[in-house]
Amino acid sequence: MYTLSELQKAVADYMNHLDVDGNPHSLYEPIAYSIGAGGKRLRPMLTVLACNIFSDNALLALPAAAALEVFHTFTLLHDDIMDNAPTRRGKPSVYGKWGTNAAILSGDAMMIYSYKLLQQTPVEFLPAVLGCFNYTAMTVCEGQQCDMSFESREDVSMEEYMDMINKKTAALLAGSTIIGAIQGGADPQNRQHLFVFATELGLAFQLQDDLLDAFGTEAQLGKPIGGDILEAKKSFLLLTALQRADGESRKHLLNLLHDNTIAPAEKIAEVLRIYNHLGVREVAETEITSHFNKAMEALDALDAEPERITPLRELALGLLGRNK
Amino acid sequence: MYTLSELQKAVADYMNHLDVDGNPHSLYEPIAYSIGAGGKRLRPMLTVLACNIFSDNALLALPAAAALEVFHTFTLLHDDIMDNAPTRRGKPSVYGKWGTNAAILSGDAMMIYSYKLLQQTPVEFLPAVLGCFNYTAMTVCEGQQCDMSFESREDVSMEEYMDMINKKTAALLAGSTIIGAIQGGADPQNRQHLFVFATELGLAFQLQDDLLDAFGTEAQLGKPIGGDILEAKKSFLLLTALQRADGESRKHLLNLLHDNTIAPAEKIAEVLRIYNHLGVREVAETEITSHFNKAMEALDALDAEPERITPLRELALGLLGRNK
Repeated sequence: MYTLSELQKAVADYMNHLDVDGNPHSLYEPIAYSIGAGGKRLRPMLTVLACNIFSDNALLALPAAAALEVFHTFTLLHDDIMDNAPTRRGKPSVYGKWGTNAAILSGDAMMIYSYKLLQQTPVEFLPAVLGCFNYTAMTVCEGQQCDMSFESREDVSMEEYMDMINKKTAALLAGSTIIGAIQGGADPQNRQHLFVFATELGLAFQLQDDLLDAFGTEAQLGKPIGGDILEAKKSFLLLTALQRADGESRKHLLNLLHDNTIAPAEKIAEVLRIYNHLGVREVAETEITSHFNKAMEALDALDAEPERITPLRELALGLLGRNK
Repeated sequence: MYTLSELQKAVADYMNHLDVDGNPHSLYEPIAYSIGAGGKRLRPMLTVLACNIFSDNALLALPAAAALEVFHTFTLLHDDIMDNAPTRRGKPSVYGKWGTNAAILSGDAMMIYSYKLLQQTPVEFLPAVLGCFNYTAMTVCEGQQCDMSFESREDVSMEEYMDMINKKTAALLAGSTIIGAIQGGADPQNRQHLFVFATELGLAFQLQDDLLDAFGTEAQLGKPIGGDILEAKKSFLLLTALQRADGESRKHLLNLLHDNTIAPAEKIAEVLRIYNHLGVREVAETEITSHFNKAMEALDALDAEPERITPLRELALGLLGRNK
């Protein structure tokens, strides 16, 4: 059994030593650039930590763990084209640096590269791991399609929003965790508990991201505050505000969001004033805590030695900033 | 053992009954549209025909055969974005009908769908089939990147061109054939012969496509004649002409290709006059025959009963119009 920090080091090392080059170099350069940009490596950590609960050989899940991180990075690369986003985490995006065609094609190659990593999975686990990976990957695409279609709709319900983030964000955390559990030899009951854990953690994580966009700091969010407000994005906060507002303030909020004559900083401040007035922050915090608690309960329900679960629990606590 | 027409019917039936739908429908509609557009189904035919040489149960290769066709169709979908092509085979392309973002995302989902089909491969063949599929898919991306980079280069050599079509076109025919052979239980020697067969067939097929663009009919080509000339595409014909022309006619040809003041029909006629003067057609025909003959020799070298090879030979002869 490995500790959290041992597995963090193993994942970082593995990701840093991926052999991403070939001919023509121009195809592979954006792939290496994207993978090298780093990040929390949350998805591969879930894979090896889930494997670590049931097996003393959690490192055998590293290739599949890396496949999930590469797949995640690929989705960001194509999302940046669709969102017309020239930067990502303060650096030029592949789309911004190399253009649409390179981002499409290097993205495609990157998805294939994720399957090349997956192919290194021990053969006895390969059919189940491949099946789970494919199902997860397709679900993420479904979530992205929902997200895109919400942009042009004014009638998105909270239920639809939760379904979208479930598919776009939580499903990949769930898939990453299950793929680790499979390779650890977890039985179906334990896999089911871990599915609930990772899904609820994913929902809490995404809702916290929504919350930080309005009430966090730029350091916490990794990009300037208020982006969702300026894009009039149907976030949990906006949908909650629209649910709670009366007819008049609802109209005011919608007009404000679509008014391009107001200075950005002023628009953000006024929307936050409305959110505060409607108690949106408290609703979001309650919702986040509720999903996070369900995730922790699912961990408690696992049939495994408690100390083997500790590293995964530490990761989850750290992710939601509840480890202090 | 099945006949060619029995396998053609089985592939057509399988492709027509793929279950391509889900939620949101808008993600899946372009996938069903693309797969339903049909075509020769060349790649899945190679898979089942190769399997058919070594096994009486060639139909077990149908899921992987379909995976290769879906992957091929996915590449066309993303290529149409990169080429800015609003139509394909006389119908609107997905890009033309639904726009860039839908074409990117449905293309991504389509690639994942090809892996979902591949996952149905009998487990004893899965590692080898997945490995071959990944290698092939990556090679196709490399070929597409080379093709794109040629557009802005004036110094493309014939060797580079042949390497590009080998990767972009021939590699997928080779991968399709090998994936069938693996599932038929072919030994390494026979797989190697089939690799040579399909690679050489692919080169002959692509060069014939180049030839038809200038010297064929719209019915043979499936689109208006002269498209490569109007795009000044570095085809086998153009590179041959540039090799054979003296300094003066070389300059004339290049000026002509980049002159946007000349009417299209006139430009095509003048380029054809130069091609005829330089004997380009004969060079191309000799090259096609040479590759086709190498493909046939590789079939003859197979260690298998001759009548089992007949259906695959018939397909190859038909593909190059040499079955009359």
